[in-house]
Amino acid sequence: MINAVGRELPEYIAGYGAVRPFAGVVTAAKEASRAKVKVNGVQPGESKVLGSLNEAIRRCGLQDGMTISFHHHLRNGDYVLNMVLDEAARLGLKDLTVAVSAIFPIHEPLVKHIRDGVVTGLVTSYISGPVAEAVSGGILAKPIVLQTHGGRARAIGAGEIKIAVAFIAAAASDDYGNLNGIQGPTAFGVMGYPVVDALYADKTVAITDCLVPYPACPLEISQEYVDYVVQVPSIGDAQGIVSGTTKITDNPVNLQIAELAARVINSSGLLKDGFSFQTGAGGTSLAVAAYVGDIMKEEGIQGGFASGGITGYHVKMLEEGLFRYLLDAQCFDLHAVESIRKNRNHQPMSISMYANPDNKGAVVNRLDVMILGATEIDTEFNVNVITNSLGVLMGGSGGHSDTAAGAKLTIVVTKLTKKSFPIVMDKVTTVTTPGETIDVIVTDKGIAVNPRRADLLQKLGAAGLPLVSIEDLKSLALEHVNKLNRPDKPAIDDKIVAVVEYRDGTVIDLVRKISR
Amino acid sequence: MINAVGRELPEYIAGYGAVRPFAGVVTAAKEASRAKVKVNGVQPGESKVLGSLNEAIRRCGLQDGMTISFHHHLRNGDYVLNMVLDEAARLGLKDLTVAVSAIFPIHEPLVKHIRDGVVTGLVTSYISGPVAEAVSGGILAKPIVLQTHGGRARAIGAGEIKIAVAFIAAAASDDYGNLNGIQGPTAFGVMGYPVVDALYADKTVAITDCLVPYPACPLEISQEYVDYVVQVPSIGDAQGIVSGTTKITDNPVNLQIAELAARVINSSGLLKDGFSFQTGAGGTSLAVAAYVGDIMKEEGIQGGFASGGITGYHVKMLEEGLFRYLLDAQCFDLHAVESIRKNRNHQPMSISMYANPDNKGAVVNRLDVMILGATEIDTEFNVNVITNSLGVLMGGSGGHSDTAAGAKLTIVVTKLTKKSFPIVMDKVTTVTTPGETIDVIVTDKGIAVNPRRADLLQKLGAAGLPLVSIEDLKSLALEHVNKLNRPDKPAIDDKIVAVVEYRDGTVIDLVRKISR
Repeated sequence: MINAVGRELPEYIAGYGAVRPFAGVVTAAKEASRAKVKVNGVQPGESKVLGSLNEAIRRCGLQDGMTISFHHHLRNGDYVLNMVLDEAARLGLKDLTVAVSAIFPIHEPLVKHIRDGVVTGLVTSYISGPVAEAVSGGILAKPIVLQTHGGRARAIGAGEIKIAVAFIAAAASDDYGNLNGIQGPTAFGVMGYPVVDALYADKTVAITDCLVPYPACPLEISQEYVDYVVQVPSIGDAQGIVSGTTKITDNPVNLQIAELAARVINSSGLLKDGFSFQTGAGGTSLAVAAYVGDIMKEEGIQGGFASGGITGYHVKMLEEGLFRYLLDAQCFDLHAVESIRKNRNHQPMSISMYANPDNKGAVVNRLDVMILGATEIDTEFNVNVITNSLGVLMGGSGGHSDTAAGAKLTIVVTKLTKKSFPIVMDKVTTVTTPGETIDVIVTDKGIAVNPRRADLLQKLGAAGLPLVSIEDLKSLALEHVNKLNRPDKPAIDDKIVAVVEYRDGTVIDLVRKISR
Repeated sequence: MINAVGRELPEYIAGYGAVRPFAGVVTAAKEASRAKVKVNGVQPGESKVLGSLNEAIRRCGLQDGMTISFHHHLRNGDYVLNMVLDEAARLGLKDLTVAVSAIFPIHEPLVKHIRDGVVTGLVTSYISGPVAEAVSGGILAKPIVLQTHGGRARAIGAGEIKIAVAFIAAAASDDYGNLNGIQGPTAFGVMGYPVVDALYADKTVAITDCLVPYPACPLEISQEYVDYVVQVPSIGDAQGIVSGTTKITDNPVNLQIAELAARVINSSGLLKDGFSFQTGAGGTSLAVAAYVGDIMKEEGIQGGFASGGITGYHVKMLEEGLFRYLLDAQCFDLHAVESIRKNRNHQPMSISMYANPDNKGAVVNRLDVMILGATEIDTEFNVNVITNSLGVLMGGSGGHSDTAAGAKLTIVVTKLTKKSFPIVMDKVTTVTTPGETIDVIVTDKGIAVNPRRADLLQKLGAAGLPLVSIEDLKSLALEHVNKLNRPDKPAIDDKIVAVVEYRDGTVIDLVRKISR
């Protein structure tokens, strides 16, 4: 089969199942369903607090072959996934599938658990570090599944991922499982990811290092969805919450790109009262936010909301009145954590509300402008943020495809070349986000507008912006790249190591094994 | 069949179905499930705002024989139920079942819709006024179903009540269906009831008189559960929100009862740091709260939470630091509405979290003390709050049975006689709350402790409280009542007009037709 972005797919993949090929972005109304869930009622007088993870795993009836889930709000500071898997290994459990919203370098012990057969399946929305490299090297017999944030919420809600036990790291919990992310020594803020896990898992275990008197308030996840509570010495390293760049770039080329992107937004006609906006936490994206903020101040524009992963920059924009609200699914730094504690206009939301394509309208649908990064972009505007240009796993969609599908104007900001690689090319190594949802690419060598957006082309041209075709960008990239320093491409095996699902669960691409 | 409170029940009731007899309060763990739900995904660019209720009803595909639902946060000020039914009648719809959390005198037009065959079924947790009288008089062919608040949430979550369209009165909504109860001209505060309707209905329509810019924050019900939004001139009369007594009694007999109840609590050993407490909004109940507050101040006790319907008295206790949190499912007056707007320790909760017996632990399970009223109490401690002593419908359990089942100490406060009727008697007219969940009855003629609670009997006796047996209370009531003014009992027909479900969905009693 060939899917809508031109990728050849088998009809069936061992360890994954039948392949539904990506057929283009669904724009018509679609009937979906939310799955039936088992609930064990808790009667007055029963206690939910258990003495150990070991006891929790046993009480939940976890068995070989089942799926367990985790969230990544603690990012590279997360201790919980490792401690649960260590305990599962000690109990002799095998063949578990781990459905975790993201995998970071701190999760390196997972490699050993995979090697030992404790874990044989992975479902995630982002994967980096040693686990990513091991998966690329073919450590697992069956392919991992890469989903978008919204796609994960959809798949869990629909019952496609059947979670036996959700293990939820909670910054604070009471003895009845009311959970929040804002109290305690390892506060991480909003608990946007695990809401759907708690709703649909057969059993939910809260793991906390801060057991507070009942009731833990404010409520992020309610006691009505939590079976057990386990206290541990520490759920993570609060400093690890701030991972990746969450500072505005000071690189002059990136600043120039950001300024151009702000001019694109200003010329699009979307920058007016009620404006809604999201950026990633990368340095260039945040710089775009700063430039847009300057324009808003100058012109007296108040935005409706900024959404997504929230940093101190977003908080400052809220406090300055540039946006009326922040819709926050994940705090990217400790400024954001502090803000959600005290500012009622900083509104938490679940990932399902944020990005699930099968709910009654996600927040991404209401975005005017989305600023995204890219590892590679092709002449069809398809974007890769999953593998590097050598084909090695090093990221994932996260909310990339979700926001691109929802926003009225999706802008990719990137240098035209990075190190010795061109960023714009004929075919991206791995399609993450389909080109039909990418409107503009802003680079240091000019701006390319997706030909589907004739309206934008006209507006940006009229504004005197430096427009080029995507083909020109590709040629310029090839001209400027220094191929001499480029590492050799590794041999690529036929073995499929990752199935890349679009947000609707169709397969948009495959990642194959690297043989060094 | 005879159920666990000695009521004779048929095995099958026409228009209701097979009868599961009440078998006593379930105390063992029990496996339940939450139902599968249909969802129509909303794509970017689609609008949810419709021009009229007429259009909303048609777009939802509402048909004869289906069930529609409403909430009663606007209580006797609610305009929404009437306007939807008027529109349904205009569209020629017949045979609808109305599942509404409570019915008030303002809903009198429902009588006409029943007479016209537009509505042929009612499911509710409280019914008073003209609709109650009409139902008692046998206006409906099939019996109505009376549930507890928690039982309603359970039945909807389990799919026993299958809601085709939930119509949700929202004090504020944006154009994408984010709802709250705290903004706008008809602010009613917490939206605890309709959360479960929004989660499980096939279609959800928000009806508001205050359409605010996107996003409406704070979020009480999320856009992901709302299909359509309709703006109307007014959803209700904000003054009607304050219905029934929400003022402390100044009747000296009631004050004496309240003071005795506070002494019972103080002698129970439960009044210590972390204490949790709920009262109804009746004058005597609120007086108990005031006396308990005095003791807490004197002894320097801080409670964990007060819950339930919240009044200005509860708000004052929160503000004075007598409780750390209010857990609020419903604001009973405008002080509570104001408080939930500004005080982060005033925590909203859904009715399912509050009282659903089939979730993973309801808030009622965590109550130390519950203060309840009663229309009648029998020598088995069974309580009636559904019919008056003539057998006419005039109330409902609401959270009565839920809190009694959950709380460690459930106290009924009442005068021993009211008007010409004894309150304590051999057999209550209608069993609402089973006696096994009622611990103490405090009256103006003494305190009766349920013999099941030998521990309490010992403690209260030691404290020198005026203890009497329930049999003595019954005799005293008969002695003191003036039978001369009592109206004649109406003739009771065999026809069943209401099936009274306990919170687990079993049948605890039946109400029969009054023939005048």
